[in-house]
Amino acid sequence: MRRLRVKSSAGGYDVIVGRGAWRALRGLRGYSSTFILTEPGLWKHWGRRFSRDAGLPGASPLLVPAGESSKSLPWAGRVASELLERGADRRSMLIAFGGGVVGDLGGFVASTYMRGIDYVQAPTTILAQVDSSMGGKTAVNIRAMKNLVGTICAPRLVVSDPRVLASMTPRAFRSGLYEVVKHGILSGPGLFGWLEKILPGLRVSNAALLETLVVRAAQVKVDVVSRDEREAALRHVLNLGHTFGHAIEEATGYRRYLHGEAVAWGLLMVIRLAELAGRLDPANGKRMARLVRAVGPLPAVAGVREERVLGLLTRDKKAVGGKVLWILPERIGKVCETSDVPREAVARAFREVQRGEWNG
Amino acid sequence: MRRLRVKSSAGGYDVIVGRGAWRALRGLRGYSSTFILTEPGLWKHWGRRFSRDAGLPGASPLLVPAGESSKSLPWAGRVASELLERGADRRSMLIAFGGGVVGDLGGFVASTYMRGIDYVQAPTTILAQVDSSMGGKTAVNIRAMKNLVGTICAPRLVVSDPRVLASMTPRAFRSGLYEVVKHGILSGPGLFGWLEKILPGLRVSNAALLETLVVRAAQVKVDVVSRDEREAALRHVLNLGHTFGHAIEEATGYRRYLHGEAVAWGLLMVIRLAELAGRLDPANGKRMARLVRAVGPLPAVAGVREERVLGLLTRDKKAVGGKVLWILPERIGKVCETSDVPREAVARAFREVQRGEWNG
Repeated sequence: MRRLRVKSSAGGYDVIVGRGAWRALRGLRGYSSTFILTEPGLWKHWGRRFSRDAGLPGASPLLVPAGESSKSLPWAGRVASELLERGADRRSMLIAFGGGVVGDLGGFVASTYMRGIDYVQAPTTILAQVDSSMGGKTAVNIRAMKNLVGTICAPRLVVSDPRVLASMTPRAFRSGLYEVVKHGILSGPGLFGWLEKILPGLRVSNAALLETLVVRAAQVKVDVVSRDEREAALRHVLNLGHTFGHAIEEATGYRRYLHGEAVAWGLLMVIRLAELAGRLDPANGKRMARLVRAVGPLPAVAGVREERVLGLLTRDKKAVGGKVLWILPERIGKVCETSDVPREAVARAFREVQRGEWNG
Repeated sequence: MRRLRVKSSAGGYDVIVGRGAWRALRGLRGYSSTFILTEPGLWKHWGRRFSRDAGLPGASPLLVPAGESSKSLPWAGRVASELLERGADRRSMLIAFGGGVVGDLGGFVASTYMRGIDYVQAPTTILAQVDSSMGGKTAVNIRAMKNLVGTICAPRLVVSDPRVLASMTPRAFRSGLYEVVKHGILSGPGLFGWLEKILPGLRVSNAALLETLVVRAAQVKVDVVSRDEREAALRHVLNLGHTFGHAIEEATGYRRYLHGEAVAWGLLMVIRLAELAGRLDPANGKRMARLVRAVGPLPAVAGVREERVLGLLTRDKKAVGGKVLWILPERIGKVCETSDVPREAVARAFREVQRGEWNG
């Protein structure tokens, strides 16, 4: 079990990672009541163990349907109404027990319910455990754009138990690993080299190795968000691979790819873009691309319309005045931030990866 | 023209009060784009002058229907979508030009659009100019409860031009003055005594006197919120009259009373409650009640169900664990905060005011 510490404007919070991490919830006292937000399938499998570990036996959770469509303003309103119905007040606490959807929705509701109550992230997917549960970003989707509406509000605590990852489908598991690869590129040769060794043979059943993986990858996120909660500058680096990734997800209506899969394509494209922009030498680019590929097969991008993706890039939340902000990998452990990338290079990077003309 | 300064966690902001205050908007630079949120009737009367003064000639505002029903999650989603449609990015700015509804909705949208953009309050009602535009509280209503979902997010600037108050209906104008009376009770003999002199003869057309009134009443709010942005303690005093007031509004479905009118009844009831609790001597109570009555006639509370109102008190956002937090006036310029009030006294205060058995 490991305790990582995130610094934040509100004073900071712990991230507890390891088998048995949920027990840390017992240490949270002084709340008038505690509520759990989760989704039915997950609760069916893990609810009993979670509520026992958390010291909340017999808890009756607030349920939202699994899947992205719950991350909406109407669902935020429903959850807030149910909290009120059940007597939640300003000193109540909400635990978001689930993956990115439950975490983002739960954080949004908690940060706005009666103008803000405390909440805990108890992430249950690899993506949430190494990335989305930390940093205090909350959001819901508006039809026009994913995560368009949200808040920055630090959780009170994050508890990540990797045992729960055993319930993930292989595809969802791989999807989360692409974010781990991103963290490897951002972090440096230590984590990157270790991932090159262990990723090809990683099994969801290898609990000890998974725990190490989550701790090491989560540490990267903790380090970045501790330095810059509002992502005015430093936090931008976490967007590596996401500029193309978000546009690809949006262009395909969020139906074809899991988030991590779109990020994987985004990573390949931005690696190639960095090469084309003369920022990254091909040997390093090859090594990065190989680690992305090592996670496993990706759904094809063959049919995705180039003009649509390129048009969507300027709508990225980091774009200002129509200028796209690119995070380009320069070497393992170093990225740069620039808006000065020729549009032709962007189109070419997309096209070469899409057509398989460049494979790293 | 007066410049008041609010201190806040984000560094503070100015409140400009006076004829011509909108011109201060010209000093805000560095935004990629500026948007105005308002309602059609107001814009028709004041849009040209506002956009000229603000240095935004020809501005095409985002419109929401007048009235409380626009302060909702669906409208927040629509406004966010329209902002995206029009190209708003993280460096854009939103001006909320309107009364409490537009201010609360605009603040909520701005504080959550792409996880937060800057916004300006340009309040156009007396209630908004002396109260709701300052302090950074934003909110939308959920069917279950008014202001259930919201944020605390300081505006970049507040610009209050009292000329616009000339467009208010007499009833809405009086409704706002009840909040001014509340500020008088909180502030002390200076403001209170001045209000006793000027309120009975105040006309909406007396621009110079109105300007002084807005400045003096706004200063009370500025002082309180500067000391306590998150209302953990000090800011609670602003709730004077609102505990009963909110319950009365809720019990009548927000249809019978304007907000200030419900607060006026709430003030009368809490003055009587303070007397019954032995916290306030009757001479002072009489003087406070007389100033409430001096504003003008109130819609009757005859038909409002006592059990319903008393039941709703525990749902107040300041209630914790079912205990109501009362702000009781002790004398002009001093209130106390207590949960230790017998339920019988609460019922009696409500009943005596409702039946006209106590009139101060």
